[in-house]
Amino acid sequence: MSKQQLPDMQTQFSEWYQEVIYQAEMADQAPVRGCIIIRPYGNAVWEQIKSHLDKKIKETGTENAIFPLFIPESFLKKEAEHVEGFSPELAVVTHAGGKELAEPLVVRPTSETIIHHMFAKWIKSWRDLPLKINQWANVVRWEMRPRAFLRTSEFFWQEGHTAHATKEEAEAEVQLMLGIYRDMAENFLAMPVITGRKSEGEKFPGAEKTFTFEAFMPDAKALQMGTSHLLSQSFAHAFEMNFQDKTGKVCQPWLTSWGTTTRNVGAVVMTHGDQKGLVLPPRVAPIQVVIIPIYKTEEEKNTVLEVAQNIKNELEDIRVFIDSSDQKTPGNKFFHWEMKGVPVRIEIGPRDLAQQQVTIGIRFDGSKQVVSISEIALRIPQLLETIQNGMFTKAYDRLQAMILGVKTFDEILKTYETKVLKTGYCGSRDCEKVLKQYTLSMRCLVETKTMSFCFYCKGASLTDCIIARSY
Amino acid sequence: MSKQQLPDMQTQFSEWYQEVIYQAEMADQAPVRGCIIIRPYGNAVWEQIKSHLDKKIKETGTENAIFPLFIPESFLKKEAEHVEGFSPELAVVTHAGGKELAEPLVVRPTSETIIHHMFAKWIKSWRDLPLKINQWANVVRWEMRPRAFLRTSEFFWQEGHTAHATKEEAEAEVQLMLGIYRDMAENFLAMPVITGRKSEGEKFPGAEKTFTFEAFMPDAKALQMGTSHLLSQSFAHAFEMNFQDKTGKVCQPWLTSWGTTTRNVGAVVMTHGDQKGLVLPPRVAPIQVVIIPIYKTEEEKNTVLEVAQNIKNELEDIRVFIDSSDQKTPGNKFFHWEMKGVPVRIEIGPRDLAQQQVTIGIRFDGSKQVVSISEIALRIPQLLETIQNGMFTKAYDRLQAMILGVKTFDEILKTYETKVLKTGYCGSRDCEKVLKQYTLSMRCLVETKTMSFCFYCKGASLTDCIIARSY
Repeated sequence: MSKQQLPDMQTQFSEWYQEVIYQAEMADQAPVRGCIIIRPYGNAVWEQIKSHLDKKIKETGTENAIFPLFIPESFLKKEAEHVEGFSPELAVVTHAGGKELAEPLVVRPTSETIIHHMFAKWIKSWRDLPLKINQWANVVRWEMRPRAFLRTSEFFWQEGHTAHATKEEAEAEVQLMLGIYRDMAENFLAMPVITGRKSEGEKFPGAEKTFTFEAFMPDAKALQMGTSHLLSQSFAHAFEMNFQDKTGKVCQPWLTSWGTTTRNVGAVVMTHGDQKGLVLPPRVAPIQVVIIPIYKTEEEKNTVLEVAQNIKNELEDIRVFIDSSDQKTPGNKFFHWEMKGVPVRIEIGPRDLAQQQVTIGIRFDGSKQVVSISEIALRIPQLLETIQNGMFTKAYDRLQAMILGVKTFDEILKTYETKVLKTGYCGSRDCEKVLKQYTLSMRCLVETKTMSFCFYCKGASLTDCIIARSY
Repeated sequence: MSKQQLPDMQTQFSEWYQEVIYQAEMADQAPVRGCIIIRPYGNAVWEQIKSHLDKKIKETGTENAIFPLFIPESFLKKEAEHVEGFSPELAVVTHAGGKELAEPLVVRPTSETIIHHMFAKWIKSWRDLPLKINQWANVVRWEMRPRAFLRTSEFFWQEGHTAHATKEEAEAEVQLMLGIYRDMAENFLAMPVITGRKSEGEKFPGAEKTFTFEAFMPDAKALQMGTSHLLSQSFAHAFEMNFQDKTGKVCQPWLTSWGTTTRNVGAVVMTHGDQKGLVLPPRVAPIQVVIIPIYKTEEEKNTVLEVAQNIKNELEDIRVFIDSSDQKTPGNKFFHWEMKGVPVRIEIGPRDLAQQQVTIGIRFDGSKQVVSISEIALRIPQLLETIQNGMFTKAYDRLQAMILGVKTFDEILKTYETKVLKTGYCGSRDCEKVLKQYTLSMRCLVETKTMSFCFYCKGASLTDCIIARSY
């Protein structure tokens, strides 16, 4: 890792992001257009997210399965809006096993079609419902302007697909998952989000309703973190999915799908990072505590490493790493682990040890404290909780200060470069389309109704909406 | 699930396998040639294997990363033997984002080339070595005769890739991973294997040496479970990978790669299954204990379910499922969970409860025992260990009885339909090629030398080899 300074966050946020990703060894550029290599440290963050979310998903009674990477082109065409939405982004296999294929295979951009094909086979009776399936998978949507974790041709996600006997149950599932996503963002990633419904112009191709959870970066740009769709019956119709209800009547099930991606990793970097690099919330940090031994003589080294090991053993439920490498000075190690955003650093040197204490450095606010060795096992878990909460509060306060209620399009144009805008909306696609000309988009419709009139046409507002630039 | 009887294992092993996979809901046919759907129960077995192996791999200091699904065609061509070996099996993306690509992208059949491209960038000094990276991924090798889990166009695996400063270190890594695989097969999957080196005709395209672990099914056919390759320096040369050693000299690193796949799931099915369906070893079973409540009245039901829940709570480290569904009779539940191979069944009914006892059924040997409720928390963990060991011993004894030492090709031709053959081998590719005409192959070269002469040319034997039919 080079000791090069990071670009200034305030003036060059985008360059800062890219450089943090590389210097913290989260990702590297791939020799394939639009793709990245997720390096071990970036992948370790993703593994924490997966592990957290997988457990939450399973608790709802959803089971994991694996569906094929390839989807026959004809499948995508069965749902008209769906194929129209995805066509420009598809990667297509035309040759395999040394021959041209009779029917081209699309590399999945999402798996509704192939999963619904199987649902039609598996669902026969009300006894088969609800059917709740999730898969962790790679998907491909061709990308001309890639950015590590935020926008890449291949990305990684979970996609849940469920079928229910009634619309009410399907709607409850959509909200259940939206709630789990929101909880993950806020309580695991310490990242406040706004949840709401997507407008007609932004909803998923083929869905009746799409709900989203949106995070907002320090530059006031929105990042769509994931979505939860009420597909209703359009796919059930396209894939001839039927079941007999308790009375023997043939019905079509009500479908949902929901997903979130490796984009979460990029969002954590942008939300919490600072001029020294990454700052990871304790719950998602692959290493929660790094111990830096400080010594000059071989004897000091042995003593210090023994104490370090004892501390690590005591902190058994915490992810601790002892950086005992001889190839770096303590100063270089401080720099290295600051760049990687490890929440807590414990320095152990002979002078501290003589007083049975260690020095603790907190990445998030740069503060230091001296702690007696006998208290470490008690103090560190509390400290990690305090940091987690402090990081959420800081990000939450920033978001609140960034949201601005506005009434007119003029106000939007004057403020959108630094603000997230909340305004009234009539529901028409024409008013929404205007935003595109200014690189703005409607992030979501929220439940409040603080404005009476649409920001553009001045017609009656149906609901407030959130407008921002986006990644 | 239908109650259809399974095909006879003795006379229709292949049909039996396919039917068990479907009836136990492990997998289903996909609407894409050569691919399967891995259903939740099959995936749960794979998740157990992944979780076990991922931990073992990380303990060796290897870290997980993610590399792109797509590999530029030119990369594969950099190592001559490598491209020749994989060409007939490749799936190729020629169009993406609505345009024909300037250079076609191959869907990875394995990732040596793209990973070595990155290694060349990351490895500069001896300080960067060893570099040990693993990825869990889907790979594609076009398959005309697919069989669920055993042979599919898309399959799932881990592929480890390591670089070392010396050949000795690389060789040690190859053996370390072969040992971990062997341990997984024998102590986790209860499946005895033979490990050894692949012949020149069977080794990995581009490797200096390939080691394999081979399992042998009840029909005496071999199943290659995974491989560990000493790649040496051919790829380092092709990808211009260099580092400065401690003296400042520019050297090329020594490489290894190793992998094992979803085939493990199929191997477990074939190794342990019986005429009633799946039989899962306790350590890999997603459900280790199923509790079947038996009752007639609502009052009995409440009592029985309360006891069932208490037992489940007591067995906190064990994967227990209470089948409390009202839609099936206890008899149907017995059938269902026998088909799914759950190691231990606990039946709880009012008559047993009156005597403070339950009846336990053991899937592996069909035995039953009555256990006092107060002893269950103690007895079940012991019982699972006994079953695990008993299953390994049974499979081990079968394999030993199947291995036949032979001296001549005539003997091979008379016995290969029911035996795994151990014989002498001179090391020549001509003698090996003869086997192909009889659908036989050399599974591996082993370390013993019990035969003096080659089975075919009668020249001096270098080492014993194992010959069998294979999946």
